Amino acid sequence: MPVNILFIGDIVGAPGRQAVSRELHRLIDRYRIDLVIANGENAAGGFGITEEKARELFSLGIDVLTSGNHVWDKKESYSYIRREERLVRPANYPPETIGRGSTIVRTAGGISIGILNLEGRVFMNSLDCPFRTADREIVRLKEQANIVFVDFHAEATSEKVALGWYLDGKVSAVIGTHTHVQTADERILPGGTAYMTDAGMTGSFDSVIGVKKELAVERFTTQMPVRFEVAKKDIRLNGAVLGIDEMSGSALSVERISLTCS
Amino acid sequence: MPVNILFIGDIVGAPGRQAVSRELHRLIDRYRIDLVIANGENAAGGFGITEEKARELFSLGIDVLTSGNHVWDKKESYSYIRREERLVRPANYPPETIGRGSTIVRTAGGISIGILNLEGRVFMNSLDCPFRTADREIVRLKEQANIVFVDFHAEATSEKVALGWYLDGKVSAVIGTHTHVQTADERILPGGTAYMTDAGMTGSFDSVIGVKKELAVERFTTQMPVRFEVAKKDIRLNGAVLGIDEMSGSALSVERISLTCS
Amino acid sequence: MPVNILFIGDIVGAPGRQAVSRELHRLIDRYRIDLVIANGENAAGGFGITEEKARELFSLGIDVLTSGNHVWDKKESYSYIRREERLVRPANYPPETIGRGSTIVRTAGGISIGILNLEGRVFMNSLDCPFRTADREIVRLKEQANIVFVDFHAEATSEKVALGWYLDGKVSAVIGTHTHVQTADERILPGGTAYMTDAGMTGSFDSVIGVKKELAVERFTTQMPVRFEVAKKDIRLNGAVLGIDEMSGSALSVERISLTCS
Amino acid sequence: MPVNILFIGDIVGAPGRQAVSRELHRLIDRYRIDLVIANGENAAGGFGITEEKARELFSLGIDVLTSGNHVWDKKESYSYIRREERLVRPANYPPETIGRGSTIVRTAGGISIGILNLEGRVFMNSLDCPFRTADREIVRLKEQANIVFVDFHAEATSEKVALGWYLDGKVSAVIGTHTHVQTADERILPGGTAYMTDAGMTGSFDSVIGVKKELAVERFTTQMPVRFEVAKKDIRLNGAVLGIDEMSGSALSVERISLTCS
Ligand SMILES: [Fe+2]
Ligand SMILES: [Fe+2]
Ligand SMILES: [Fe+2]
Ligand SMILES: [Fe+2]
Ligand SMILES: [Fe+2]
Ligand SMILES: [Fe+2]
Ligand SMILES: [Fe+2]
Ligand SMILES: [Fe+2]
Repeated sequence: MPVNILFIGDIVGAPGRQAVSRELHRLIDRYRIDLVIANGENAAGGFGITEEKARELFSLGIDVLTSGNHVWDKKESYSYIRREERLVRPANYPPETIGRGSTIVRTAGGISIGILNLEGRVFMNSLDCPFRTADREIVRLKEQANIVFVDFHAEATSEKVALGWYLDGKVSAVIGTHTHVQTADERILPGGTAYMTDAGMTGSFDSVIGVKKELAVERFTTQMPVRFEVAKKDIRLNGAVLGIDEMSGSALSVERISLTCS
Repeated sequence: MPVNILFIGDIVGAPGRQAVSRELHRLIDRYRIDLVIANGENAAGGFGITEEKARELFSLGIDVLTSGNHVWDKKESYSYIRREERLVRPANYPPETIGRGSTIVRTAGGISIGILNLEGRVFMNSLDCPFRTADREIVRLKEQANIVFVDFHAEATSEKVALGWYLDGKVSAVIGTHTHVQTADERILPGGTAYMTDAGMTGSFDSVIGVKKELAVERFTTQMPVRFEVAKKDIRLNGAVLGIDEMSGSALSVERISLTCS
Repeated sequence: MPVNILFIGDIVGAPGRQAVSRELHRLIDRYRIDLVIANGENAAGGFGITEEKARELFSLGIDVLTSGNHVWDKKESYSYIRREERLVRPANYPPETIGRGSTIVRTAGGISIGILNLEGRVFMNSLDCPFRTADREIVRLKEQANIVFVDFHAEATSEKVALGWYLDGKVSAVIGTHTHVQTADERILPGGTAYMTDAGMTGSFDSVIGVKKELAVERFTTQMPVRFEVAKKDIRLNGAVLGIDEMSGSALSVERISLTCS
Repeated sequence: MPVNILFIGDIVGAPGRQAVSRELHRLIDRYRIDLVIANGENAAGGFGITEEKARELFSLGIDVLTSGNHVWDKKESYSYIRREERLVRPANYPPETIGRGSTIVRTAGGISIGILNLEGRVFMNSLDCPFRTADREIVRLKEQANIVFVDFHAEATSEKVALGWYLDGKVSAVIGTHTHVQTADERILPGGTAYMTDAGMTGSFDSVIGVKKELAVERFTTQMPVRFEVAKKDIRLNGAVLGIDEMSGSALSVERISLTCS
């Protein structure tokens, strides 16, 4: 029987958390989900995460939170990021960075799963090489887990697809985040790794990637600073469901999820 | 009866042209296509376009070629770009730029359709504002055509989604190109404009967005210059089919297309 | 007798305003200055400008303030930017942008001087072409003034030097700002235009371009967001003195200024 | 008696090599130079370096060549870069990169001098952290040399100034390259490290940072690809002369050099 993982794309603000609240249990049931992973970098008001919002998401049934470049937006979350083992930030931040880049959790059925978070470098922060960081972290995680899931938080499709191929056969899945737009390229690469360029966004779709659309248009047409606010209507949950072979760690299936909330 | 437009995402090199050759007629038949538009910026060896390759694509049944930042890669194509009315380059290049940013064609059924090409500015060239250029060009095109199709060649999802909302109700469709990865967000916006962040790529999918995957990985892991070559295997055609109301110019349907070539 | 213009590089926070307060009158006397222009985009706490800080700078003897990408940092300054004729923002922002991109002032001796502000596009905002904007604005300014001074607020040396050559013979001076590091390349180009890639910074030099140095190092070594604060020690005034022929508008001399404050 | 080092800024093409040929011996005599270091990343036709051009520069009296992002432009130079101990490339390229990031040479007087090359990450390649790489390399070099010279090849003034402060007291000098425009901020920081944001360029100044000026302007105004050619007139040599205490490794003096060639 495969291990079923649900991955939820970037949860944006209160509408994103509502989507999780309304849909998660139904999804867990329908797909017999063993583990729920979600990207939470925008969970708190669209920018960053706080202990309160993370706890809320865990209480709703999420097992592990990944993140990305926005994880540092709330200074008050730093001590929480340091101690919360179920929350990861990209592993290729500098060596001394607070928090952890990967973690291992056990499903209710007792299966260990490694979760690795990486951030791209093209058009983003100046970080350590995600390819080499992946190599190093995967060796470590594989000592304790047959299944390894990678959230690659990156902008450029070229960097994301390249990492997918680079890790094919080494991990169970490489799923991208950050662009907030779901891609239609989910597939299982020849070596057995599930790949998808972007899982998409969980939040308001009456928006520009989560932000009130008038404000985003204003930013582009005026080139002046605009304070972004989270949009509220047309709430959807984006993500992917992965079926993974417990022994080999190979992906058996990958399915794109896009739910319009009731 | 709706006017049916097939849009084909960035055609990359010989494998991309082969995909068009093998699949286009079947698609035209199946969807009763009235007009075929394709992005040809990578048609010649992955970089740029030439008169020869453009003529090959027109002879296969493509009616209009759009393009993007790579359209200038082959210097020998400039005189062709200047005179070929069925080939457009982004309209927001500087005023004196050779070629045209939009064109109007007639379907076999005698319906006029305006095609507008724009390029994003985030992480790309320094061009005129695509929002304002769109406003100006659309007024002109609408004098002669009820239906206007926009290919927005851009990198950042935020800029693409923002332009979609900005033009909602003013054009029939805003379809993105450039990332070479098809997105799963096709929809008809409330004002009647079909929108999709990226149509995807037509070419080899055993690749990093069209390029041999070993070379792309080498570029990222060494940060040294690497001469890219077009990949050849696993050929697919990506795009979208749009159904548009002839009188109002509103989109009636948008369907994502991803064909694995026989 | 030449018209003598003092241009002061980006004034950063209270230390920058102090430098002006301490040194300006001495400079005006020593160089028989007819007009003082200063870049004020960082005058208010290092980010943006306010009516209060602008009035302070005008009262100290500055005649015209130019600016750049940071001019929009303080929302409360917008109505002031709209109405203050002695304050300019880059002219190549979109058409509807509040404020003005150029202005004309008269020296005590009755000589009209046009001041034009432009912003670069390489590694900066997505603006209209500074070369074409310059052409258009200069024609307008030349109808009322023989002397035209250009503050080109830009990052890349290539773009700055290119604009210098492009405007050679058309304006009296092209002086760069934005990098906060003074360059040693002041010269008069063959057509009579004084050119210098960057005028430098007026503020604390015990800093990283005005910011407390520990904070800047932290930003680079952690890649996490850091709230910048203005540094205070080792205050200097950077800029340039230009001698310009009243009739022809040609530059007769350009001298780099770097004063360590008493 | 201080050890005198002459550092020459980016040598661009044949005009740059001519400048060295005409001026180097005079400079060595006048300043009693013990060691000559030069940045050679643009020595071959403006892009990269070849064995032939490197040998030419060594034969003219240069002891060590540093480089930067353009060092990889000529594929035929790779085997030479691998074996030539007097040629360094930025040390923060990935671990397996060919060539060396630092070297140690001896002056005629028998003094060992370490030379370290680093590349910035802001607006440049995705490399390892230059701050941490510096720490690690300096420890190694200091085991064999009291004097360590750093060429920091970087774009952003903030990153350059920050590294200067970060290495103050740890090395003899941090001199920047890459922008091809000499800065006027040479100084000795409180810890004894000579610092200068950019040494400038050695080549044609009737140009845009070495390139024919018409071509550079064309690139900016058309946003189309332009093949750059090295400019030829108004040849100058830019750089700096450093006086360094042999025992402590502290800088005693730093002097900016800008020579117009006879
Ligand atoms: Fe996000
Ligand atoms: Fe993100
Ligand atoms: Fe493309
Ligand atoms: Fe493109
Ligand atoms: Fe500034
Ligand atoms: Fe600025
Ligand atoms: Fe260079
Ligand atoms: Fe360089």
